[in-house]
Amino acid sequence: MAVVGDADPKPGPHDPRREEERIGADADARSIRSGLGLPVARIEALTDGVFAIAMTVIVLGLELPKGSGSLGSRLWVLWPKLGSYVLSFVMLGVLWIGHHYQLNHLRRTNRILIWLNLGFLLAITFLPFGAAVLGTNYADPWAVALYAGTVIFAGASLLAHWSYAVRHGELLAPGVDANVIAALKTRIWFGMGVSVVAIAVGFIDTRISIAVLLALPTVYLVRSRIDHKVVPRT
Amino acid sequence: MAVVGDADPKPGPHDPRREEERIGADADARSIRSGLGLPVARIEALTDGVFAIAMTVIVLGLELPKGSGSLGSRLWVLWPKLGSYVLSFVMLGVLWIGHHYQLNHLRRTNRILIWLNLGFLLAITFLPFGAAVLGTNYADPWAVALYAGTVIFAGASLLAHWSYAVRHGELLAPGVDANVIAALKTRIWFGMGVSVVAIAVGFIDTRISIAVLLALPTVYLVRSRIDHKVVPRT
Amino acid sequence: MAVVGDADPKPGPHDPRREEERIGADADARSIRSGLGLPVARIEALTDGVFAIAMTVIVLGLELPKGSGSLGSRLWVLWPKLGSYVLSFVMLGVLWIGHHYQLNHLRRTNRILIWLNLGFLLAITFLPFGAAVLGTNYADPWAVALYAGTVIFAGASLLAHWSYAVRHGELLAPGVDANVIAALKTRIWFGMGVSVVAIAVGFIDTRISIAVLLALPTVYLVRSRIDHKVVPRT
Amino acid sequence: MAVVGDADPKPGPHDPRREEERIGADADARSIRSGLGLPVARIEALTDGVFAIAMTVIVLGLELPKGSGSLGSRLWVLWPKLGSYVLSFVMLGVLWIGHHYQLNHLRRTNRILIWLNLGFLLAITFLPFGAAVLGTNYADPWAVALYAGTVIFAGASLLAHWSYAVRHGELLAPGVDANVIAALKTRIWFGMGVSVVAIAVGFIDTRISIAVLLALPTVYLVRSRIDHKVVPRT
Repeated sequence: MAVVGDADPKPGPHDPRREEERIGADADARSIRSGLGLPVARIEALTDGVFAIAMTVIVLGLELPKGSGSLGSRLWVLWPKLGSYVLSFVMLGVLWIGHHYQLNHLRRTNRILIWLNLGFLLAITFLPFGAAVLGTNYADPWAVALYAGTVIFAGASLLAHWSYAVRHGELLAPGVDANVIAALKTRIWFGMGVSVVAIAVGFIDTRISIAVLLALPTVYLVRSRIDHKVVPRT
Repeated sequence: MAVVGDADPKPGPHDPRREEERIGADADARSIRSGLGLPVARIEALTDGVFAIAMTVIVLGLELPKGSGSLGSRLWVLWPKLGSYVLSFVMLGVLWIGHHYQLNHLRRTNRILIWLNLGFLLAITFLPFGAAVLGTNYADPWAVALYAGTVIFAGASLLAHWSYAVRHGELLAPGVDANVIAALKTRIWFGMGVSVVAIAVGFIDTRISIAVLLALPTVYLVRSRIDHKVVPRT
Repeated sequence: MAVVGDADPKPGPHDPRREEERIGADADARSIRSGLGLPVARIEALTDGVFAIAMTVIVLGLELPKGSGSLGSRLWVLWPKLGSYVLSFVMLGVLWIGHHYQLNHLRRTNRILIWLNLGFLLAITFLPFGAAVLGTNYADPWAVALYAGTVIFAGASLLAHWSYAVRHGELLAPGVDANVIAALKTRIWFGMGVSVVAIAVGFIDTRISIAVLLALPTVYLVRSRIDHKVVPRT
Repeated sequence: MAVVGDADPKPGPHDPRREEERIGADADARSIRSGLGLPVARIEALTDGVFAIAMTVIVLGLELPKGSGSLGSRLWVLWPKLGSYVLSFVMLGVLWIGHHYQLNHLRRTNRILIWLNLGFLLAITFLPFGAAVLGTNYADPWAVALYAGTVIFAGASLLAHWSYAVRHGELLAPGVDANVIAALKTRIWFGMGVSVVAIAVGFIDTRISIAVLLALPTVYLVRSRIDHKVVPRT
């Protein structure tokens, strides 16, 4: 490993800088030594794992009732749970994409950011429980409050994560646009605001809450300032 | 980041900018800023996680009946569930490989592609439930319809994903062969068609459906135009 | 990103070749185009995910019996399940390491190798069920046979995987030592042989089988020819 | 691999050796051949997967009791389980971060290190069971002992892992500071010591134990010598 060549004084193909490159690539993100903080890759791996599981375990709550009825009628009984599953899957999708965008703009992370990320993941792991409660108590405003409250907690963690990173600019990737920084914040505030509304209207009728929560993700389907143009290759 | 420096006429191989590029590589796909859209790696990670879990949780539905019978006889009772597990594992394998090939031809992704991918994952997370229903209701044509319908939904998402990517050529890796593009589509259409047939024949006899579904993956075992020749190194 | 600099005619830091390099690294293993087959990274990701889940879900089978007894006495009842969990965790460890070594020697993969790998993963996902059956039927030779049979199936898949890769040398990393190739095979044959013995002696006394299976991993703790010497840095 | 070629005075940017390097990078950590032992990436992947699952499955133990009471009162019954879930999530967070830091300082791994890591993961997979037992038996000092004992086992594995790596310096990344080496050890010893105290005071009152265990992670929130300064880019 070029490492060994540290003695070599002349700049050339093996000068210290190229060497650092090599170590960086080879040892795969073992660059804490460079004074750049912790790499982002493992946080992404842990986060992707938690999301993959949260998205999948909600289905484990689906159990076909036994009985003599037709399959269709027994499946029909499950519709609130199925609805809660689809809602939660989509909500997790929105949150995952939000996380994806943020991490894409980070160059490095540190202990505080990791804990803010873990706070976010705490909410993600709790969402399947919230979904199960909502699936069996969809007419209870407190079930909506528990569910939407979890979404708000996730949003707040994501916002704290992003705000911290922005305040500590050395953690950001170079050249992050101020518009993007603002847009990422606005989008989280928006989702949290809608979730608060969903909780409030639940005390009138939880069906409105659920409609509001189902409508929320559609907003995030739309392209925004945070989506960079993909430049065709010529 | 070198991104910025394209105008510069002659950066030497070791100038600071090249080094920064390398840090870019090091920080693993933090290249959203370059106007190339989102990197593919995290989508792969989420997808691989969901598949890994879906493949494993089907087994959680296997529970040995308690009783005084011999172990063999109690295991024997499980055969429809075991069959459903093996069928589903293989089906997930086919779908995973299909996804693997598609992503291999993508250079970047964007918001729409991510949502199409999430639609695909929704079907994947649902498959264990479909498998559980099929394992306990294998003689019911509606159980076959639920199961094969999930496969069709997964196929349709995969097809939409690929078609979108092809229509937005800047997301494709350079030099993707038109034959490969067409073959990837044909293979998905084929699987969806067979699944429709499986649903239809289920109303005559679900055993034919299951035979058809079990036969389906064998087609995908065969090499096709989408498999590139591995060139030995000389 | 240099990508944008395609217009630049002169070979230099932005010439096409360098660009392809960049895209190769940047787009992370999107090198199917190079005629080198499919990259190995996603197979590792899927495999690592399946192992992580298989290792964890065995614990889900542990449930503290309710009752008025002391915690200690209620935990004590669980010991066969606990034993089965530890045995299975270690067995999964051995199999994971075996897979790790093999993949380390692969340069690329193809459709056949992926299916052989999926066959291996089928056994891995089945092992938690085998462990649950063994944990509640540890005195039944057929429970041992089911469990050890799963291990044999995993071993056979791993052997087929390695043999196929060796026969198609272009998939191997350059410079794999013939000794290593042979040693990797021998180690798998050994594990399969011991598992056959464990099944056989189970019909005399399953406690011997379990002792044999518990002893098996210790062999794999020992350094072998497949372990390359780590060269100290001077 | 160019690694070897340090003596060579002027390899051009496109000479064969540089290309091999590239393939090395491309094929992602397939560098076992270089005599540097096994790459670290897959161990991270397996570990991240196990943590992601352990963090998520604890929630699967949460089940809303059925009954006629209000949702709030039924949720209230769950508070010891909820407390156990949050405690365990945070504990897993601490352990994950500890692992993250260690691996960051490793250049390569070997068979012994992998087994020490698997010992660590054995404790991690067991923690959800410990959490479930604690959640239903929070007044029983033995439940505290089981739980804190699992944490101690995890800590001991982590300590053994780090001590082994330090003793085999060729596995360490170059330039790891002696202060960091010592600090990583001290932090693990500290956590293990506090866990021993938690077990001991449990025989007086388990509420003190739980308070102690809940207080423990706060220590790890604080920056320490092991946190490198993130240097702003100029």
